[in-house]
Amino acid sequence: MRRTDLFVPTSKEAESSAQVRSAELALRSGLVDHPGAGIFSYSPTGERVRKNISDIIREKMNDIGAQEVSLPGLQYADIWRKSGRWEEFEGEMFTFQNREGKDMCLATTHEEPMAGLVRERVRSPKNMPLVLYQIGEKYRDDHPRNGLLRAKQFTMKDAYSFTTDEAALDEIYQEMRAAYIEIFDELGVEYAIVDADPSSMGGTASEEFQAPAEVGSDEMAYCPGDDCHFGTLDFDVDVCPECGTDLVETNSIELGHIFKLGTRYSDPMDLTYDTESGQEEVIMGSYGIGVSRLIPALIEQRNDENGIIWPESVAPFSLSVVPLNEDPEIIEMAEEIHDRVGSEEVLLFDGDTAIGEKFAESDLIGVPAKVILGNTFLEDGELEVEFRDGGREYYEPADFFETYA
Amino acid sequence: MRRTDLFVPTSKEAESSAQVRSAELALRSGLVDHPGAGIFSYSPTGERVRKNISDIIREKMNDIGAQEVSLPGLQYADIWRKSGRWEEFEGEMFTFQNREGKDMCLATTHEEPMAGLVRERVRSPKNMPLVLYQIGEKYRDDHPRNGLLRAKQFTMKDAYSFTTDEAALDEIYQEMRAAYIEIFDELGVEYAIVDADPSSMGGTASEEFQAPAEVGSDEMAYCPGDDCHFGTLDFDVDVCPECGTDLVETNSIELGHIFKLGTRYSDPMDLTYDTESGQEEVIMGSYGIGVSRLIPALIEQRNDENGIIWPESVAPFSLSVVPLNEDPEIIEMAEEIHDRVGSEEVLLFDGDTAIGEKFAESDLIGVPAKVILGNTFLEDGELEVEFRDGGREYYEPADFFETYA
Repeated sequence: MRRTDLFVPTSKEAESSAQVRSAELALRSGLVDHPGAGIFSYSPTGERVRKNISDIIREKMNDIGAQEVSLPGLQYADIWRKSGRWEEFEGEMFTFQNREGKDMCLATTHEEPMAGLVRERVRSPKNMPLVLYQIGEKYRDDHPRNGLLRAKQFTMKDAYSFTTDEAALDEIYQEMRAAYIEIFDELGVEYAIVDADPSSMGGTASEEFQAPAEVGSDEMAYCPGDDCHFGTLDFDVDVCPECGTDLVETNSIELGHIFKLGTRYSDPMDLTYDTESGQEEVIMGSYGIGVSRLIPALIEQRNDENGIIWPESVAPFSLSVVPLNEDPEIIEMAEEIHDRVGSEEVLLFDGDTAIGEKFAESDLIGVPAKVILGNTFLEDGELEVEFRDGGREYYEPADFFETYA
Repeated sequence: MRRTDLFVPTSKEAESSAQVRSAELALRSGLVDHPGAGIFSYSPTGERVRKNISDIIREKMNDIGAQEVSLPGLQYADIWRKSGRWEEFEGEMFTFQNREGKDMCLATTHEEPMAGLVRERVRSPKNMPLVLYQIGEKYRDDHPRNGLLRAKQFTMKDAYSFTTDEAALDEIYQEMRAAYIEIFDELGVEYAIVDADPSSMGGTASEEFQAPAEVGSDEMAYCPGDDCHFGTLDFDVDVCPECGTDLVETNSIELGHIFKLGTRYSDPMDLTYDTESGQEEVIMGSYGIGVSRLIPALIEQRNDENGIIWPESVAPFSLSVVPLNEDPEIIEMAEEIHDRVGSEEVLLFDGDTAIGEKFAESDLIGVPAKVILGNTFLEDGELEVEFRDGGREYYEPADFFETYA
């Protein structure tokens, strides 16, 4: 994509209104716009980041046999009354009446609608295990704060498992846990896995994936060791039981939650299957990831004084190209990189802004690498690649295209 | 995908409650579920269809340089009051207050939020032309009827262009029109392009893409000639001015609408750009496609007594495989097709239901072709492929894999 074509809604209000670094950078870099308290618009770069995150999650969900569905955000009150949560969510749920005077709401979560979808359709043990998931919008009338970390409308991946017994639930729970580890590793986010208290939801086991971050509203102790994701709510434990490293106490952001629900929703929703001796309740699990929350979590962990530092898996563009002057050889190579690596991957800094501004903007947006086309290229025929973390490499054009195209 | 793994929420209520063929087939085939008046859940097959349609649209929008964004469905009243549509949409818009007592609503359309996003960010003629689009949810408190044809929550692609003058608007309008023709052709839907009355929205030109269908709530006369998409609201015209074919009067379903808005929204939204002599109003266009409505429109046009007949571009699976018995050679070939063509494309009818039921279900779901593995395969080593329209072909395995894998 050419920079002169790309719409980047940078925000002047960013410095003054945003309380946390990720909110400031998301606005300043033009990733999102903030049309009102707790709601956000995704710009072209923001939508690219959100799509990259969603695609990684979708691929891992499909890999473990989960099937994608989509349930409406707009809901009738009946199933929420049936599960007892219509009152429980009071205040936090947007509720209203439709033209016929029926109570409706916006889904805060989808356990009830998902149980409603499979009820009467999952009646035989042969229909299970079954795992369904969706990537879509949720709505909570929270006090908005910290930008995308707590919004009134946000994007979640939520998955639900349906099994006949605890052993089958445990198997899917472990598969989902392994998939989550792959997902968060691929997303390049630092995280710990924390035993959560399942009793509040009536379930039997529950773990949270928490990202260490100063602005997080949760707290944990975690192991900072490489490749060790141990976390705990028990602040009396000082040393990681898995690798012996000293634990660190920190605020954290909840990225994901896997949950053995048991029969908490099957029971009120009459979600049963037939056995030889009668009917049994289906055993459920639920598994969420905060898709839009991953954006500020990544920014909080990965930024410097110049802006965002996206991992390549998530970055809106994997490369930017900055021609230092209008020399025809330079322009030709810039165009060749744009065409061969692909306009989806390359942000070509055309236009007549100052070189310094181009560098600064590429870094602010968080593009992982810049190809700088100047004297090095004209004199030695080599492409200079400067990485967002300060590293630098030189490539013969053929080697460059082998690596990036 | 194996049939025994696929979740297909077929509906017993379908025959009795659905008034139109597409609603009946969407429910009976398990494409969608209908948890309440005017709202729908997409099952795994429904979500595949919706994703295929979205991907075709997304590709063509990107091809003409439109950039994908995402605006929230949840909105504050202020911009709707500014444009004068808060009252205009009364009754049709879901409105409510948040916990702070602020008026909010669910977006029925996004002209105002989109103008808000670019306002102050598109100030120089250099920033234009600009085309932004999104694929997402809209909400209207309509009287729900005819299943997915008129729902309270539905999926739309909406695009908006921003230009400095009418000539630039006209250029984008024509590019968008050409892209729409490519999209609807690739989707395999029959349609006509009808001059619509732009005066109601204050614009200068407007065309609708209408699908001939008995259940449609619009009416038109159109040319049934191949590759001719002429349509008109003028029922005094009898003959197609483009190809001379006799016109046919019909009900129709609105699939898309392209619209020269002019300054209808720029004016109240203060969407201006700077010129040497002062400020000028930005010229807008808006371009919609009813993504979820395409599903019933396609079903209405493409069904027979056995079920849906999807075009290959949209089908949830491009092939189904029906082994007629448990012969090891047959099972081995069925598995090979599943693996080599890919589990995303192939629905393998495993399980112990009767052969007739497998055939019937593949046809009901609308899979375009069935590979039948029986005596023909055992005796001659040939794969029998039966197409959904009744055609039949035989392939050597090598030729088959060359065609389908």
